[in-house]
Amino acid sequence: MSASEKPVGIAVLGLGNVGTEVVRILDESAEDLAARVGAPLVLRGVGVRNVSDDRGVPVDLLTDDIEALVARDDVDIVVEVMGPVEPARKAILAALESGKSVVTANKALLAQSTGELAQAAEQARVDLYFEAAVAGAIPVIRPLTQSLAGDTVLRVAGIVNGTTNYILSAMSDTGASYDSALADASALGYAEADPTADVEGYDAAAKAAILASIAFHTRVTADDVYREGITKVTAEDFESAKALGCTIKLLSICERITNGDGQESVSARVYPALVPLDHPLAAVNGAFNAVVVEAEAAGRLMFYGQGAGGAPTASAVLGDLVMAARNRVQGGRGPRESKYARLAIAPIGVVPTRYYVSLYVSDKPGVLSSVAAEFAKREVSIAEVRQEGVVNEGGQRVGARIAVLTHRATDAALSETITALGDLDAVSSVASVLRMEGAGE
Amino acid sequence: MSASEKPVGIAVLGLGNVGTEVVRILDESAEDLAARVGAPLVLRGVGVRNVSDDRGVPVDLLTDDIEALVARDDVDIVVEVMGPVEPARKAILAALESGKSVVTANKALLAQSTGELAQAAEQARVDLYFEAAVAGAIPVIRPLTQSLAGDTVLRVAGIVNGTTNYILSAMSDTGASYDSALADASALGYAEADPTADVEGYDAAAKAAILASIAFHTRVTADDVYREGITKVTAEDFESAKALGCTIKLLSICERITNGDGQESVSARVYPALVPLDHPLAAVNGAFNAVVVEAEAAGRLMFYGQGAGGAPTASAVLGDLVMAARNRVQGGRGPRESKYARLAIAPIGVVPTRYYVSLYVSDKPGVLSSVAAEFAKREVSIAEVRQEGVVNEGGQRVGARIAVLTHRATDAALSETITALGDLDAVSSVASVLRMEGAGE
Repeated sequence: MSASEKPVGIAVLGLGNVGTEVVRILDESAEDLAARVGAPLVLRGVGVRNVSDDRGVPVDLLTDDIEALVARDDVDIVVEVMGPVEPARKAILAALESGKSVVTANKALLAQSTGELAQAAEQARVDLYFEAAVAGAIPVIRPLTQSLAGDTVLRVAGIVNGTTNYILSAMSDTGASYDSALADASALGYAEADPTADVEGYDAAAKAAILASIAFHTRVTADDVYREGITKVTAEDFESAKALGCTIKLLSICERITNGDGQESVSARVYPALVPLDHPLAAVNGAFNAVVVEAEAAGRLMFYGQGAGGAPTASAVLGDLVMAARNRVQGGRGPRESKYARLAIAPIGVVPTRYYVSLYVSDKPGVLSSVAAEFAKREVSIAEVRQEGVVNEGGQRVGARIAVLTHRATDAALSETITALGDLDAVSSVASVLRMEGAGE
Repeated sequence: MSASEKPVGIAVLGLGNVGTEVVRILDESAEDLAARVGAPLVLRGVGVRNVSDDRGVPVDLLTDDIEALVARDDVDIVVEVMGPVEPARKAILAALESGKSVVTANKALLAQSTGELAQAAEQARVDLYFEAAVAGAIPVIRPLTQSLAGDTVLRVAGIVNGTTNYILSAMSDTGASYDSALADASALGYAEADPTADVEGYDAAAKAAILASIAFHTRVTADDVYREGITKVTAEDFESAKALGCTIKLLSICERITNGDGQESVSARVYPALVPLDHPLAAVNGAFNAVVVEAEAAGRLMFYGQGAGGAPTASAVLGDLVMAARNRVQGGRGPRESKYARLAIAPIGVVPTRYYVSLYVSDKPGVLSSVAAEFAKREVSIAEVRQEGVVNEGGQRVGARIAVLTHRATDAALSETITALGDLDAVSSVASVLRMEGAGE
């Protein structure tokens, strides 16, 4: 590092787990970071809701006036790790509009306002980096935007929410119910007091929107993402999964869909799905994250690591910060938003996947035939079928259970089939419908 | 893309598997690439050894005058995928010196001449990218140089040579000898006619040098890398590995070593090692590659995918090409060589690892005690020991075999121990000595 270089001024907004780690590393690794940037990184201030002297940061660096901190002339880069959409959005826009580069981990904001933010960054010709917004420490944004910039991405499928993966892993390991696994996760701090954003798939959907946007050069927002959470997954679903050589994972999937006319569109969707045990995502357990990318030339790549937590997320934030600071010192900018492809969003109805359907039926001749007929009518091809007797507590046979695994069919065709099956007299209930991913045609 | 943008001229040197795929994708994805770069990429020529009209490329694009091709005014970026160190080195230097950016997949050249090339790029203020040089399509260079730029890398351990991984996977699966597995690999095209560069670990060592250089901000060349190949790995070694819950992998390891005085150095080494079956690298089989990175804040990350082959390697080359072209069009440069840390290279003697040692001994009282004493004398702590009888073909007991697994010890202490064991009267032979990686202390 050249001592004569003008320092790069940093403002950190938020002092939770991630902010605290960012501030700590800025201090402890100051010399290394300066050498990598070519100039010292100097922390000008930390924006917090309440200034107090027990935050582990010199109190004169703390301020609750975020607007004033962002506006300071000696702040070159703003690191936003405070969380909710507002006031983060306002602070980031103010920073970009005044010519400061921004590093953010705010997936909910990005998945909602990416256009507005990207445009502000473009007008001011500054950097907007967000590696930490998806899969914590795992580099996925940079590989997708840069390493695969010369390839054609076909599909991205990830386990990108640690809370739900912890709950589903526990259900798989112990046979627990959803409620009991959620209670354990809460007690251990893996689930928040209000777990809605995680268990209903909102967090995974925000990340799917970000991944789809960069993978397919198309602006995709959280509202474009089809979403089902994990609250309806049962212990019986895991038993069925095991019988099929599968487990169940909450997947964020972004896929290039080509229709009969060769027209391309993008599907972004989040749901719990059966995943074959020999698929690399099946082995990703607990709070870990992983993202599988399939590209035309590269084939299948997998990225694996810690998807959350203060230190791992801070690692991603600091990587972005060093890159933004280097660009300040040495000139140049990182890649900007690429949305030239402007693909349409595919509605869930046209998305083809495989399905597992389990039905309780009455135990009389012709039932299997009429069930199979409903699939055939809608051109949903059956790959495997199993019928077994159901006995009551006294050991008496009271009906049968039919489990069907289909080949790939559109969601619309399958939904119609399920409705029709429910209307059959012989079907007493549709016990579960689960999609299967990563298992071929 | 704006049609008015001046095109970016490309020269491709080499038309093997990778060059052919690069040329194909440049043609087939021209529109997408132009949109991503902001200007069309135009192929000005392809340098080959012999010009002929059956190469699948318009013959007027082919030339055997590489010097003239690189010197053309309308060439902005040179893609070098022709292979050996020379004439690649000369062509790359000429390109850099005349202000052209360079994308190369040439690991042997980079591991030898990285200083010379980086300096030429620095003087001309152009880009030198080489994502394809390590682990094919798998993004590892960019994550290490950019995503982890704010973190402290502790260790990189990778399976980065597909040929040896194919051979070792076959030995593990079938119990085959090294010679028979190599013969199969050759017959299937997974090993070259002269497999020396792969099986003796030269290729893996070049990649270890590149990874160590960027992970530790220190210039490391192939000569700095301690290297053992896989030619001495036996079917019995795999049996021992299985008994220990391990497999055997050829690993490229780069590690930050801190001595008693707090002095840091870099160890870069390549050898076949025992890897516990629950370690993520144990499941990487066949021609696949994987790199595990451990960093202070990020924790453990893994990158997995196809490490070789025309299309996967071309994907990495094209990612670099798009980034270099964007910098041409929009200004700026990618990260340059970072060698500020200038850490010393740790000699193999000071590197601590765990060891597995197997000995044939005579079957009399006191042998185990004198064997154990040789370990203790050099402060090599024993973690596990197993003694079993050895019988001859007639079923008669003719001696014993002692297998020892140590805790972490320096290579020097272990080497001395092995020499001393060989000198004991009771030891008839040292059957194998294998390091163990990824299994804790």
